[in-house]
Amino acid sequence: MKQYLEKAHVLIEALPYIRKFSSKIILIKYGGSAMENEELKHCVMQDIALLKLVGLKPIIVHGGGKDISKLCEKLSLKSEFKNGLRVSDKATTEVAEMVLNRINKTLVQNLQSLGVKAIGICGKDGLLLKCSQRDANLGFVGKIEQVNVEILEELLEKDFLPIIAPIGMDESLNTYNINADDVACELAKALKTEKLVFLSDIEGLYEDYKDKNTLISKLSIKRAKMLLDNIEGGMLVKLKSCIDACEHGVKKVHILDGRVKHSLLLEFFTDEGIGTLITKEEYQ
Amino acid sequence: MKQYLEKAHVLIEALPYIRKFSSKIILIKYGGSAMENEELKHCVMQDIALLKLVGLKPIIVHGGGKDISKLCEKLSLKSEFKNGLRVSDKATTEVAEMVLNRINKTLVQNLQSLGVKAIGICGKDGLLLKCSQRDANLGFVGKIEQVNVEILEELLEKDFLPIIAPIGMDESLNTYNINADDVACELAKALKTEKLVFLSDIEGLYEDYKDKNTLISKLSIKRAKMLLDNIEGGMLVKLKSCIDACEHGVKKVHILDGRVKHSLLLEFFTDEGIGTLITKEEYQ
Amino acid sequence: MKQYLEKAHVLIEALPYIRKFSSKIILIKYGGSAMENEELKHCVMQDIALLKLVGLKPIIVHGGGKDISKLCEKLSLKSEFKNGLRVSDKATTEVAEMVLNRINKTLVQNLQSLGVKAIGICGKDGLLLKCSQRDANLGFVGKIEQVNVEILEELLEKDFLPIIAPIGMDESLNTYNINADDVACELAKALKTEKLVFLSDIEGLYEDYKDKNTLISKLSIKRAKMLLDNIEGGMLVKLKSCIDACEHGVKKVHILDGRVKHSLLLEFFTDEGIGTLITKEEYQ
Amino acid sequence: MKQYLEKAHVLIEALPYIRKFSSKIILIKYGGSAMENEELKHCVMQDIALLKLVGLKPIIVHGGGKDISKLCEKLSLKSEFKNGLRVSDKATTEVAEMVLNRINKTLVQNLQSLGVKAIGICGKDGLLLKCSQRDANLGFVGKIEQVNVEILEELLEKDFLPIIAPIGMDESLNTYNINADDVACELAKALKTEKLVFLSDIEGLYEDYKDKNTLISKLSIKRAKMLLDNIEGGMLVKLKSCIDACEHGVKKVHILDGRVKHSLLLEFFTDEGIGTLITKEEYQ
Amino acid sequence: MKQYLEKAHVLIEALPYIRKFSSKIILIKYGGSAMENEELKHCVMQDIALLKLVGLKPIIVHGGGKDISKLCEKLSLKSEFKNGLRVSDKATTEVAEMVLNRINKTLVQNLQSLGVKAIGICGKDGLLLKCSQRDANLGFVGKIEQVNVEILEELLEKDFLPIIAPIGMDESLNTYNINADDVACELAKALKTEKLVFLSDIEGLYEDYKDKNTLISKLSIKRAKMLLDNIEGGMLVKLKSCIDACEHGVKKVHILDGRVKHSLLLEFFTDEGIGTLITKEEYQ
Amino acid sequence: MKQYLEKAHVLIEALPYIRKFSSKIILIKYGGSAMENEELKHCVMQDIALLKLVGLKPIIVHGGGKDISKLCEKLSLKSEFKNGLRVSDKATTEVAEMVLNRINKTLVQNLQSLGVKAIGICGKDGLLLKCSQRDANLGFVGKIEQVNVEILEELLEKDFLPIIAPIGMDESLNTYNINADDVACELAKALKTEKLVFLSDIEGLYEDYKDKNTLISKLSIKRAKMLLDNIEGGMLVKLKSCIDACEHGVKKVHILDGRVKHSLLLEFFTDEGIGTLITKEEYQ
Repeated sequence: MKQYLEKAHVLIEALPYIRKFSSKIILIKYGGSAMENEELKHCVMQDIALLKLVGLKPIIVHGGGKDISKLCEKLSLKSEFKNGLRVSDKATTEVAEMVLNRINKTLVQNLQSLGVKAIGICGKDGLLLKCSQRDANLGFVGKIEQVNVEILEELLEKDFLPIIAPIGMDESLNTYNINADDVACELAKALKTEKLVFLSDIEGLYEDYKDKNTLISKLSIKRAKMLLDNIEGGMLVKLKSCIDACEHGVKKVHILDGRVKHSLLLEFFTDEGIGTLITKEEYQ
Repeated sequence: MKQYLEKAHVLIEALPYIRKFSSKIILIKYGGSAMENEELKHCVMQDIALLKLVGLKPIIVHGGGKDISKLCEKLSLKSEFKNGLRVSDKATTEVAEMVLNRINKTLVQNLQSLGVKAIGICGKDGLLLKCSQRDANLGFVGKIEQVNVEILEELLEKDFLPIIAPIGMDESLNTYNINADDVACELAKALKTEKLVFLSDIEGLYEDYKDKNTLISKLSIKRAKMLLDNIEGGMLVKLKSCIDACEHGVKKVHILDGRVKHSLLLEFFTDEGIGTLITKEEYQ
Repeated sequence: MKQYLEKAHVLIEALPYIRKFSSKIILIKYGGSAMENEELKHCVMQDIALLKLVGLKPIIVHGGGKDISKLCEKLSLKSEFKNGLRVSDKATTEVAEMVLNRINKTLVQNLQSLGVKAIGICGKDGLLLKCSQRDANLGFVGKIEQVNVEILEELLEKDFLPIIAPIGMDESLNTYNINADDVACELAKALKTEKLVFLSDIEGLYEDYKDKNTLISKLSIKRAKMLLDNIEGGMLVKLKSCIDACEHGVKKVHILDGRVKHSLLLEFFTDEGIGTLITKEEYQ
Repeated sequence: MKQYLEKAHVLIEALPYIRKFSSKIILIKYGGSAMENEELKHCVMQDIALLKLVGLKPIIVHGGGKDISKLCEKLSLKSEFKNGLRVSDKATTEVAEMVLNRINKTLVQNLQSLGVKAIGICGKDGLLLKCSQRDANLGFVGKIEQVNVEILEELLEKDFLPIIAPIGMDESLNTYNINADDVACELAKALKTEKLVFLSDIEGLYEDYKDKNTLISKLSIKRAKMLLDNIEGGMLVKLKSCIDACEHGVKKVHILDGRVKHSLLLEFFTDEGIGTLITKEEYQ
Repeated sequence: MKQYLEKAHVLIEALPYIRKFSSKIILIKYGGSAMENEELKHCVMQDIALLKLVGLKPIIVHGGGKDISKLCEKLSLKSEFKNGLRVSDKATTEVAEMVLNRINKTLVQNLQSLGVKAIGICGKDGLLLKCSQRDANLGFVGKIEQVNVEILEELLEKDFLPIIAPIGMDESLNTYNINADDVACELAKALKTEKLVFLSDIEGLYEDYKDKNTLISKLSIKRAKMLLDNIEGGMLVKLKSCIDACEHGVKKVHILDGRVKHSLLLEFFTDEGIGTLITKEEYQ
Repeated sequence: MKQYLEKAHVLIEALPYIRKFSSKIILIKYGGSAMENEELKHCVMQDIALLKLVGLKPIIVHGGGKDISKLCEKLSLKSEFKNGLRVSDKATTEVAEMVLNRINKTLVQNLQSLGVKAIGICGKDGLLLKCSQRDANLGFVGKIEQVNVEILEELLEKDFLPIIAPIGMDESLNTYNINADDVACELAKALKTEKLVFLSDIEGLYEDYKDKNTLISKLSIKRAKMLLDNIEGGMLVKLKSCIDACEHGVKKVHILDGRVKHSLLLEFFTDEGIGTLITKEEYQ
C-alpha cells in the first residue's frame, strides 16, 4: 500500500508541470549517446511519448552522427571535418541524406509503436528549410536562408509529432546537409517555442570548462555572453545558438545530459533542474 | 539519482494507461468519506485534476449526504428515510437544493484552484434531468424521466469539467431531490461512457458480504446477477445500477474504496485494480 | 379583425428594435420586487425569454436580498450591514452562497420552462470572478480583482443564457459574497455590452431625489457626475457604477423600475423610454 | 400605461410561436393582390422581415402576373393562355424573364431597406431549376426536371433571405418560364420545409366553392383528396400541389388570403388560423 | 504523336501562371463586341470558366449597352446621353434594370452550362452598391456612395462565380443605373483584387491615339497621368478609373481587346501580354 | 496570332477534363524509365504539378528499382530475387529504406521547386502500412496487413501532395520492404480513388503479349480475367492488382507507358486514351 501511495505522489507531483506546459511547443534537439545507446534511446522515446500524451507538443530535430561516417567509410568516401562541420561533396551529401532519413523513419517507428502519431520530414517537405551554401570550402553544407513553419503548424494542428532530419534545399535542386543544432535553433525561433532542449553528451555549461565541479544550473543571456570567451569548439557554437534563441522569442533553453536516463522527464516533471537552463532575464 | 529514476519509472508506467484513456469520458460518482474527510477530499480533487490534465474527460456527480441532514436539523426539519431515500417535502427539498448547490460550487472552487476549468450545474441547467415523482410517499424525490446530455457534450467540447448536483425538475416548476447513484448511472448510460466509477465507503463487492475476506476484484454481469440474492440495502441498489449501466453501453463499472487515498489514480494508472470491476462480458 | 390588425401593428413596431439589438449582449441586473413578487417575476422571465428568442443575448446577474436574511434569522445568525453591504463571517457567507445558488437554479428552471436554454453559474465557475477582501470589517465581502469572461463567451457561443450568482473566490479557497451591482457593472465593462440594465425598486434618477416629479429620462455622464453630490446611500453607489460602466465601453446604462410589469419589454421594444438612461455622450 | 401593457401582452403572446418556429425554413409563394397593391405589399414585406429577424428562415417564390402581360402588350406581343399557363414563344419568354427579374430585385430592395440581408436569384443561378418543355403547345413553359437546393442551403447558411424568380433552364441554353406555384411546391418538397404558404387572392378552400360560408380552416390530405372532384381551374392545380407537398415531407401547407393585411403575421403569431391549413394527418 | 507533345507543351507552359494566380480574385469588366458577338461571347465564357476551374476567383461586372437602347426604342422611350452616360428617368431606369438583369441571368446560364457554379446579382442584393444621384440632369444615374463587399466574400467562400449587373439603390427605394466601369473599379478597389481587366472594343492605350501604331503595352501610373491630357471621351474616363484602381490597392489593371478571341486566356497564360497593362510602379 | 489561337484551343479542350476530375483523388504508381531518365522524370513532375494545380488530388507511390541494387553492389550485398521480389535480409532492407527515402525526398524537392506543396512519407508515418512477413524465404518483404489512410486524408485536407515510399513496419519494430505495386493498389482501394495509374515501361496490355500490334486500349474486368492465363511474370501480378482494385471501389485503372513524354497529361486531358484502361464494367 505504501508503495502505491508513493506512486500516486509522484504522479501528483507532476500535476503543476503538466498544467504549466499544456499545449506548449517544445523543440528537442536529439543527438549523441542518447541516440546511439539503445537503452538510452528507448528512455528518450518513452519520455517524448509521455510529453506528447499529457498534452505538450514536442518537435524533434535529430542528427545522424556516427552512422553517416560509418556508411561513408563502407563506401570509401573520406569523412573530413572543418570547424566541426562535415565537408560535403555530392556523394557525401547523398550518403548523409540516406542515413538521416533512415534514422528519421526509425524514430517515427519507435514513437508509433508507443502509440504516438508521428511523422518524419526533412527541410525539403513543404519547403521547410531553404538553404544556400554556407562556405564554398564545405561543399553542400547549408546555411538556412528561410524557414517556412507552415508545414509544422499544420502537422501540429492535426496532432502529429513532427520529427525533422537536418536536410535542406535551394531553388536549383541542390541538397544540403545542415548542422542539426542550427536547425533546432532556427525552428525554435520561428515558432517562438516555450522551450528549446539540447540533449547531448555534456552535463551542461561550466563556469570553468576544465573543472567539472563548476556546472552552472541557471544563467541569463547576459552572463552567458560573458562565458563566450572562456569556451571553444562545438560548445561555443551551441552556446551562441542558445543565446540567439533566447534573444528571438524562445522562453527557455536547456542543455541536458543525454547520457542520464529519463533526463527529459526529470527536467519537465520535477523541481530539480538537470543540466543548464538559459533564459533572457535572470530566472527565479 | 536512484530516487529520480524511480520517479521516472512511475511516470513511464502510466504511459500506456494515459494513451488508453485519452479523450475518454469517465463518470465519477463522488460521495461518502472521500467527500467529508478534508484530506481524502483533497486527494480526490488532485486525482481528478490529473485525469483531466492528461487528457481524460471526467464528469463528477456528487451527493450531499450528512450536510443536508445537518441543515435540516438546524432548521428543525425532520430527516426521514424510506429504503435509503430521504422523504422530501417542499421545505426539505429546498434545503437539499441549497446544500447540494453549495457543495457543487465548492468542488468547482477546489478544481479551479488546481488549474482545472470546472463548471457546476444541476439537472435544471439545460434541462439535463427531467423528472417525475418517484413515489407519492417520498414527496419530491425524483424519478429520472428524460436525460438531455446536449449540455454535457457542449461543456466537454469547450473543455470544461462538469460537476453535477443531483437535483431535477418537471414541467410544472417542481424541484426534485434525486439519488446521486441514479443520476450517475443514467448519465453514464446516455453518454455511453468508458467508465462509471462509484467512489464510496466500501471496499467493493464481497462473495459473502459478511466476510471481508471474500472481496471480488472482477466479475461479469452474469455473475453479478447471481450475487443479487445475497445482498441487500443500499448495496443491492448500487449493484443493480452497475448491471444496468453495463447492459446499456457503459464499458466498465468500478466500485472503489473512497477511504483509500488516491484510489482513483491507482485504479487508472496501475495494473493492480482496486475494489471491484464489473463488465458485460467476462473480463481478461 | 380590427383587434388582429392592432396585434400585427404591435409586432411590426418591434421590428426596428429587434433588428437594432440583434446579437447584442445585454447585461441585466435583476433584483428587488421584480424578484420577490411572483407575478412580476413571471413577467420578467417572459420578457427575458422573448429578448433571447428574438436574437438578443441577455445575461442575468441576480441578488439574493431578503432570502439571505430570512435564512440567517432561522439559523440565528445576526444580519448586520455597513454602508449597505452585509457583514459576512464564514457562516453568513455560507448561508449567502446556499441561498444565492438556490435562487440561481430557480431562475434557470423558470427560463427552461419557457423554452430557453439557460445555465446557472457563479463567480467560481471557470474562475469568472477572482476576489480579494474588500474591507477587513466586512469579512468575506469580495472586491472583484479579476474578471475572466472566457466562460461567458463560450456559453454564449453555445447559445446558453447565463445566469450569474454574485459569489466569488480567491486562490486560498475563500468564498466571497459580492455586491450584485458591482458584478453586473464589472461584467458589462469586461464584455463591453450594448446595454447594462438595473432592474430595481426605483423609478429612475431624480433631479431632486425628494421630489418624485423630477424624474430624469436621459442624461449624459457629464450631467450624471453633477448629480453625485445630491444623492446618497445605495443610489449613490449605483450611479457611480453607471458612470463607471459608460466610461469603460458600455453603450447605454438603464435604471428601470422593476415594479412595473414588462418594463424590460417596453424599454426594448417601444419608443417611449422608461426609467433613466445614462450614456457617455449627450444622447439624441 | 394600460396601452403599454397591452403591447407587452401581444409580444408575450408571440413567445411560444417564435420558439416553435425558430430556425425553421418557411417557403412563401407570393403573388396576386398582395404583390400588386402597394399597401398590402408593404405589409407583406414587414411581415417577412419580422419572421426573418425573430429567427425563422423564410424563402420567397414570386410570380409576375400582370406586369408580364402589360409589357407584352406594349411590345405588341400577344398574351395567350392555355389551362392557366402563358403560351411562351422566345420573345414572350424573354419578356417574362426581364419582368420577373425586375420584380425579383425590387423585392430584394424592399427587404434590404427593412434591414434584411436578401438576395434575388432565379432557377438558372447555381442550376437551381433544370427544366424540360412541359408541353409543345405551350412553347418555353418549363417542367421542373431537377432541383439543386445546394445553392439555397448555402445562402441560408450565410444568413441570406433568398427570393426566387420562376425561371429555369435546360442544357441547350433554353430559358423557361415556370408556374410559380410549381416552383414553390418543388422547392418546399426538396427542402422538406416546416411550412409552405400560398399567399393569394382567395380566402382559402371551401367545402362548396360556390358558397363563401363554407371555408375550411383545417383538413387532412385524405379529406383534401375528396375535395378534388368538386373544384376546377387554378384552384384544382393549387390543391394538387398542396397534397403533393404534404405527401413529400412538407409539414404544413397554408392557403392564406393575401388581400388581408398582415395575414402572414397573424397566421404565424396567433392561435387563430387564417385561411386553410392542409396537413398529412388529421391535425389537432 | 508530335501534335500530342505540342498540346502537352501548351499545358505545361500554363503551369507557372496557374500557380501564380491560384486563389487570386480577378475582376473582369465585360462589355462591347465581346458581349454582342455570339462567337466572341462563347470564347469569353470558355476563358472565364477555365480561369475559375484552374483555381482563380473571377468576378464579372457587365454592361448592357445596345440592348437597353433597343428596348427603349421599341417602347418609344428616347435614349439620350450626356458625357457618355444615359439620361435615365424612371421609365428608362426600369428598362435598364430589366435588360441588365436578363443579360445577367443569361451569363449565369452560359457559365452554368460550362459546369461553373455561377450566381447573378446586382447592387441591390446584400446592399452591395448604395448610391446617390450623380447629377440632377442625368436622373437616376447612380454615384456609388458605399460598397458592401461582404456578399461577394460570402459568395466566393461558397465557391460561386458572382456576376454583377450595374444597378444600385438608395435608402428611399430609388433604383439607379450605374456606369459599369465605375462599378468594376469600385469593387476592385474594395476587394483589393490581383487584377482588374477591362474587356472592350479597343486595342489598348496609344501613345498618340490617332496613330494605331503607337499601342503601349505597359505603363506606370506616373506615365499614365501624363497621357491624360492627350485623350478624351470614354477613354479618358476609363484611364482615370485605371489610375484610381492602381492607387487604391489593385495590383494590375489591363485594357484588353475584346474583339480578339480568347484574349483573356492569352493574357493570363502566355508571356506575351495583349493590350495595355497599367501598374502603380514601373513594371518589369 | 494563329499560333496564339491554337494555344487557346488546347487550353479550352482541357476544360471538360479539368471539371470532370476536380477534387478527385488520383493514385499514381511511379516507376521504371520515367523515374530513371532525367528528361522523362522532369516531364512526369511537370504533369503531376499541373494535375495538382488545376484541382486534382494526386498521390504518388514510387519504387526504388535500380538504385537499391546499385547501393547493395557497392556495399557487397548480394541482390537476389524470387518471383520478382527482392530477398531482403536486415542489411538489404536497411539499404532499401535508405535508398527509397532518398528517392522520396528528391521527388518532394522536384515538386516543391515547381511550386507544389509536397510531403514525403513512408508506411511508418502515422502507421500507414502495417505489415507481416510475406514469405519466410523472402526475409523482410512485407505483406500489407492493415492500411491506416487517416494520415493521407489529413495531409490532403491540408492541401499537401503526399509521396509514399513502399516501406512498412510491424509492432515488433521490424521494417519491411514492400512491392510498390501492392502499396499503390492497397491505398487506391482504401481511398476508393477515382483513378489508379501504373506508369511503367510497357505500352499496355496486349491481346497476344508476343505481338506488339495487339495493344488493348480498354477492357472490362471480365475480359481482363480471361487474359490472366495468357500472361506471366511481373505483368501477371500487375494485372491481378488492376482487377483487385477495380473490384474494390477504384473507378478506373490505367496502365500507361512511362517512356512516352507527358503520357499522364495526355491521358488526363485529351480524348485519345494512351495505354490500357481497365474498368469494372464494359466502358463506353
